[in-house]
Amino acid sequence: MSEKTALVISAHAADFVWRCGGAIALHAEKGYAVSVICLSYGERGESAKLWKQDGMTLERVKSARQAEAERAASVLGVAEIKFFDLGDYPLIVDREGMMRLVKVIREVQPTFMLSHSKWDPYNTDHMRATSVAIEARMIAQAWGHNPGENVLGAPQLYLFEPHQTEQMEWKPDVLLDISSVWERKRAAIGCMEGQEHLWNYYTNVAENRGNHFRRNSGGQAGGRKSTHAEGFQSVYPRTVDEL
Amino acid sequence: MSEKTALVISAHAADFVWRCGGAIALHAEKGYAVSVICLSYGERGESAKLWKQDGMTLERVKSARQAEAERAASVLGVAEIKFFDLGDYPLIVDREGMMRLVKVIREVQPTFMLSHSKWDPYNTDHMRATSVAIEARMIAQAWGHNPGENVLGAPQLYLFEPHQTEQMEWKPDVLLDISSVWERKRAAIGCMEGQEHLWNYYTNVAENRGNHFRRNSGGQAGGRKSTHAEGFQSVYPRTVDEL
Amino acid sequence: MSEKTALVISAHAADFVWRCGGAIALHAEKGYAVSVICLSYGERGESAKLWKQDGMTLERVKSARQAEAERAASVLGVAEIKFFDLGDYPLIVDREGMMRLVKVIREVQPTFMLSHSKWDPYNTDHMRATSVAIEARMIAQAWGHNPGENVLGAPQLYLFEPHQTEQMEWKPDVLLDISSVWERKRAAIGCMEGQEHLWNYYTNVAENRGNHFRRNSGGQAGGRKSTHAEGFQSVYPRTVDEL
Amino acid sequence: MSEKTALVISAHAADFVWRCGGAIALHAEKGYAVSVICLSYGERGESAKLWKQDGMTLERVKSARQAEAERAASVLGVAEIKFFDLGDYPLIVDREGMMRLVKVIREVQPTFMLSHSKWDPYNTDHMRATSVAIEARMIAQAWGHNPGENVLGAPQLYLFEPHQTEQMEWKPDVLLDISSVWERKRAAIGCMEGQEHLWNYYTNVAENRGNHFRRNSGGQAGGRKSTHAEGFQSVYPRTVDEL
Amino acid sequence: MSEKTALVISAHAADFVWRCGGAIALHAEKGYAVSVICLSYGERGESAKLWKQDGMTLERVKSARQAEAERAASVLGVAEIKFFDLGDYPLIVDREGMMRLVKVIREVQPTFMLSHSKWDPYNTDHMRATSVAIEARMIAQAWGHNPGENVLGAPQLYLFEPHQTEQMEWKPDVLLDISSVWERKRAAIGCMEGQEHLWNYYTNVAENRGNHFRRNSGGQAGGRKSTHAEGFQSVYPRTVDEL
Amino acid sequence: MSEKTALVISAHAADFVWRCGGAIALHAEKGYAVSVICLSYGERGESAKLWKQDGMTLERVKSARQAEAERAASVLGVAEIKFFDLGDYPLIVDREGMMRLVKVIREVQPTFMLSHSKWDPYNTDHMRATSVAIEARMIAQAWGHNPGENVLGAPQLYLFEPHQTEQMEWKPDVLLDISSVWERKRAAIGCMEGQEHLWNYYTNVAENRGNHFRRNSGGQAGGRKSTHAEGFQSVYPRTVDEL
Repeated sequence: MSEKTALVISAHAADFVWRCGGAIALHAEKGYAVSVICLSYGERGESAKLWKQDGMTLERVKSARQAEAERAASVLGVAEIKFFDLGDYPLIVDREGMMRLVKVIREVQPTFMLSHSKWDPYNTDHMRATSVAIEARMIAQAWGHNPGENVLGAPQLYLFEPHQTEQMEWKPDVLLDISSVWERKRAAIGCMEGQEHLWNYYTNVAENRGNHFRRNSGGQAGGRKSTHAEGFQSVYPRTVDEL
Repeated sequence: MSEKTALVISAHAADFVWRCGGAIALHAEKGYAVSVICLSYGERGESAKLWKQDGMTLERVKSARQAEAERAASVLGVAEIKFFDLGDYPLIVDREGMMRLVKVIREVQPTFMLSHSKWDPYNTDHMRATSVAIEARMIAQAWGHNPGENVLGAPQLYLFEPHQTEQMEWKPDVLLDISSVWERKRAAIGCMEGQEHLWNYYTNVAENRGNHFRRNSGGQAGGRKSTHAEGFQSVYPRTVDEL
Repeated sequence: MSEKTALVISAHAADFVWRCGGAIALHAEKGYAVSVICLSYGERGESAKLWKQDGMTLERVKSARQAEAERAASVLGVAEIKFFDLGDYPLIVDREGMMRLVKVIREVQPTFMLSHSKWDPYNTDHMRATSVAIEARMIAQAWGHNPGENVLGAPQLYLFEPHQTEQMEWKPDVLLDISSVWERKRAAIGCMEGQEHLWNYYTNVAENRGNHFRRNSGGQAGGRKSTHAEGFQSVYPRTVDEL
Repeated sequence: MSEKTALVISAHAADFVWRCGGAIALHAEKGYAVSVICLSYGERGESAKLWKQDGMTLERVKSARQAEAERAASVLGVAEIKFFDLGDYPLIVDREGMMRLVKVIREVQPTFMLSHSKWDPYNTDHMRATSVAIEARMIAQAWGHNPGENVLGAPQLYLFEPHQTEQMEWKPDVLLDISSVWERKRAAIGCMEGQEHLWNYYTNVAENRGNHFRRNSGGQAGGRKSTHAEGFQSVYPRTVDEL
Repeated sequence: MSEKTALVISAHAADFVWRCGGAIALHAEKGYAVSVICLSYGERGESAKLWKQDGMTLERVKSARQAEAERAASVLGVAEIKFFDLGDYPLIVDREGMMRLVKVIREVQPTFMLSHSKWDPYNTDHMRATSVAIEARMIAQAWGHNPGENVLGAPQLYLFEPHQTEQMEWKPDVLLDISSVWERKRAAIGCMEGQEHLWNYYTNVAENRGNHFRRNSGGQAGGRKSTHAEGFQSVYPRTVDEL
Repeated sequence: MSEKTALVISAHAADFVWRCGGAIALHAEKGYAVSVICLSYGERGESAKLWKQDGMTLERVKSARQAEAERAASVLGVAEIKFFDLGDYPLIVDREGMMRLVKVIREVQPTFMLSHSKWDPYNTDHMRATSVAIEARMIAQAWGHNPGENVLGAPQLYLFEPHQTEQMEWKPDVLLDISSVWERKRAAIGCMEGQEHLWNYYTNVAENRGNHFRRNSGGQAGGRKSTHAEGFQSVYPRTVDEL
């Protein structure tokens, strides 16, 4: 395994593409092994286009969603993608699901983790995924949980951008320049055939976050010429040697 | 002038010592030219010990405070310390004071700035200093303000640790390891003879922030052996190439 | 079924009367079919007066509560009231309870929904009802949940007035004039024989919200002469063609 | 004067275009007389492109900004635009400026008002304009302020969309469909020649708010086909006869 | 002067009656010398009824307001009431006004202070009074402010109940039983002839806060039989020897 | 049983020592019977030192933790300590666990209760303990829960100090002087042999809270000479007869 790793905990199969596809591609290029866990396929709640087809079944939806997610993951350079198939709308993570997640976290030993916003009144699966990520991280840190396994350190948990950010009370404190991998993210977005109505939306988001990047890196007096960016909210304080 | 610079905007003469003395010393060692502006001496409100002496006058208090602050600044490796003498309790920054501050900001072109918390019901001078810092930063960025001068970029503004953090609604998102310069900070604290009752207090703070540093850098599974740290709250999102 | 509908999700049998009885009566008069779901009877926690009687049993309390609630519903013009009998103190909504609720939501296809405040440290049943309402609304919107059923649109969820509003962090953004149906609401309140200590309280609330209505509709310069009103907090932004 | 009126209080000459140009055009078409007050020209802080030209003067910048703003206002159907010329970076509203504003508010008797977000650490002029709007509204309501004049009722104050919404702690509770006037807004944006770098940005914003409009009006189950929208945050509760 | 004292800082002449009349009467009965400072008469903004009379003048309004306030103060047992006459709508407290206030605070040496809520978008005079109270308290604590005067300790500042509490983001953490002095408060309210529309409103408030008092002191299992109460929000933590 | 009682609900066996050991010792000296419930031993997550020993087992860790906690409880003067052994990392309180807790609450009839902060992204067990405490308190108040038992009144719930207070969004509104029992608390801390790295940390906390006590009780003008203190956040408003 490469030294640096990242772990994305995605409530549904497509979330990691829209919300942190740039971060994945960028870190993959930097040599990180990026793992993605899809807690569900989003088979019931985020597959309207498929369900409007005649004779659709739950299994066919799951297959289609998995195939799309795998293609996108491949485009982004994901090292490993796992589907926990815990069900969506609602996503319920029972004890066994939690322990599977803890196990993966310990195996991956992520340098940082990525998940959803803390609040989402449109989509309780999203905020549950975040709660689960926080709890699983805690369990993975416990010396008495499966003694002998590698205990987790204290990776940052970044909350990626939700839909309708203000309604989710999400506030980015980090802007990541994804200009160099934008084409790759756009290609991964294009794999999400079932949600074509969001392609333009997330292109707009990336362009506008690029504007924010330019402003916050110096604006018209020395700002970086970022064209596309992604925003993240940190859960924990970071530890540094220089401000 | 060295390439990297930092600017501290301190409401009273002593604030920069308790609240970011470690950051100053650390960055000075790294080659930053650190400038400190004391908007007032804290002559009325933070000099109780002096005022309890017979025959004390405002000018004598100011002199004593200035001497202490200069000694501390020297210990910390401050490149330049300025006293604006705008008065304290209350600190009032009029248009002229604002423009003096803008001028210094443009001269220093700080890589980052440091000031107080946004809210402080114990000390309105503190929160006013922060408002002033934010407004001065904005003016310094305006191309039409004294055209021809060097326009400011977008330096981060870090809010340093207030007294009674929870009452000030201050939440650190950055922990800075100051272990290597702790002795220097402690020596600067020792220069503040008028506020000896705070020496132990801020030693405790530094030790406990060191504990937070260890936890957030990995805890018992790889955390850094920081002994002393300082916490800061960022006002603006940071712009990065790697999470 | 009439075209316009509303759905109230009430943790206990009496909540809908105090908290949105005016809204129910007003919309019923406007031709809405208003449905009420009582997740529990409030049999354990909100029936102190009954339990102080000798020989009281859980079943007798439930019957008394149901009878009161039905009388009140009738007075208010409720189209349909359902008792889910899920138990109170604590109210626990398991998967089956959730799915019953989703089913009703899809049948009713409410133009808007009503439930409790998001936070209530006095009564966790209340805040759980709200969480459940938000999650059930999400499931009812999923095209893959019981495909073939009518999918839900995006009805507003209004949070009605809790007891001790400030402690519940509830802030009304809508004031509804219920002057024309006040007598009806007051009559419904009078059906709640077990909680007579609250009759005057909620009369005062309605009068004071009437004052707020007058102020916010123009005050002494053109305000509406509302005598009684109810307040509501919206969870989602509203979509309009005119401000 | 037409019966319905609206009043925009804009810190700088261009703000009303980006932030509520759609609302202006839409209400103008509905017969509202929309007035705009530009407290300053944004001559120092928002005219970088002009200042980069040789021999530029403050008066020439103001003239250029006024001309642009008037053209945009004309395109949007603004009934009246006033320039208070109070200066920017910083914008200072003294007693006389406040009283001029109160006088206009009383003359216009707006059905609703529009201004900036409450918090803006990038631009203190913006948040000061909002404070001023709130205070001026209060004075205009006072029966003892210039007795004999028409007292103001209680118009809603909508806060329009700031740049970097999350950093400004701005949360829209109203989404306005501006699809029918989008071309007009886009044309007004095109008048802002000095800030061409924002044209695409605010086009993206309008498209994405259109997506939010569709979701919140029903999504894939009956949502309105809005293509462009604007978001607003209400300061006061609204008073209604129907939810 | 009696040993225990309290100081009310009221933006307008009537505020102290509605908002803390019970606290005043109760503490007066307990032997506190309660001082009231009315920063203005509320002559412009809170005297609509007077202004509707023919030939009214500012001086006559002030006189009427002063007379009402003095009668109410007398009924409540106020030891001393001062009128600073700083003007209202807007209330502006300049340096001289601030220093007058500091002087009174030092003379009174209040055991506790009372003022308005921190936020009030309907009435900026109210929130300004609170800011002023916080700043004056700080200055009064400064050993170097008028050396030789008695320095202030650390009295609690209680924020009394605003109109429309939720809109003001006010949350009471103390409920004071005023049952024993309710008749006195009601009589003082009756002195406010110019604002008769508020008499019933604040009677309702007192009754409903009484309900809150009963609930929070034990409810149906030992709660105190308070009939009327007032709520207050503390600015500072309290220091105790027993929880 | 003595008349006054207090109940501590501690997620793990050691929490009560660090976080409210002073309050326990102080109230025990005042004659309160203080009960402590440890929902778990903290056997997996807070016993790293033990797990680093060869051949450690879950049972041995639990025994060691119980022994330490009992010694500390004895030093502090705890009347009764119970271990619910519900498991940690994660702590799961099922219906039976909840009912055991309700039963103890009714038996103890606490004058006040103590538990954790509402939010803790480092330790979800902590915030779950608080949720459980709030819900159990509610059930214990229900007249219909096990009719015939003594119904609970409305004891305050104090949230004791978490680690890294600002990250937990915890804000103390009460400071308790524990100077007189500090030695006792320090001795209890010394019983926690497995967490020696925290001894100095919580000594620093107590000293610094002592500083806060001095400031808030009068500072340099009459403040109490407290050397050590503890801070608490109240969940409910308190009911008083005097401010």
